Amino acid sequence: MLTKIAHIGVAVSNLQEALAFYKAVGIEPSHIEDVPSQKVKVAFITIGDVHIELLEPSSPESPIAGFLDKRGQGMHHIAYEVRDIHTVLKTLKDKGIKLINETPVEGAHEMMVAFVHPKSASGVLTELCQHK
Amino acid sequence: MLTKIAHIGVAVSNLQEALAFYKAVGIEPSHIEDVPSQKVKVAFITIGDVHIELLEPSSPESPIAGFLDKRGQGMHHIAYEVRDIHTVLKTLKDKGIKLINETPVEGAHEMMVAFVHPKSASGVLTELCQHK
Repeated sequence: MLTKIAHIGVAVSNLQEALAFYKAVGIEPSHIEDVPSQKVKVAFITIGDVHIELLEPSSPESPIAGFLDKRGQGMHHIAYEVRDIHTVLKTLKDKGIKLINETPVEGAHEMMVAFVHPKSASGVLTELCQHK
Repeated sequence: MLTKIAHIGVAVSNLQEALAFYKAVGIEPSHIEDVPSQKVKVAFITIGDVHIELLEPSSPESPIAGFLDKRGQGMHHIAYEVRDIHTVLKTLKDKGIKLINETPVEGAHEMMVAFVHPKSASGVLTELCQHK
């Protein structure tokens, strides 16, 4: 049901500083985008067919600002691509996995997305996403 | 220089509980292995061409036990596959990236591995690995 890892989200306090490591190995971000709905600025790093999303809060009210206050910089979530998000969510719910979104919501890049609660995924905030 | 994401390490307090999420979506671990040198028991989950390594401490002295005490369960490290680990390490060092291992050490699966310090990689403990 999970076809691939789509991206890994990393919470950072400063995008330009975070990019230094990737630039040191010759990787420039494929693009940098403001996502006002999540109050973040995102730099996309492509490695193989997986993206690293570096997430810098653009406001103190951003969920990423809260994460940085509590945990500091570091990995924030893993996103898996799925073929049929509705079936996956129903299957997980039936098996007692705790979901943040029981129905998918609109995500970036024309994707439908839903989050699994970290409590049901070994402390990992887990995103499921499907191309529309 | 980074050819692909090889695996994502996740620190868990109990492997069987951690496997529940993956089993719910039909994924069984490809294998489970004791790694006495790291004092961990590891379950390998394969999704596409990336592995999730679920790491359960097998002793209170395990580095993973320390991580769990400090941060709780969750993502622990990202490992990138590289073609020439010596060149990558030299390039990173020359560019001021802080390394935990300046020369590679013996890893699992006949790999040479070296870690980049999280301070130089946005709080992410970063592993570089090369097949021998």
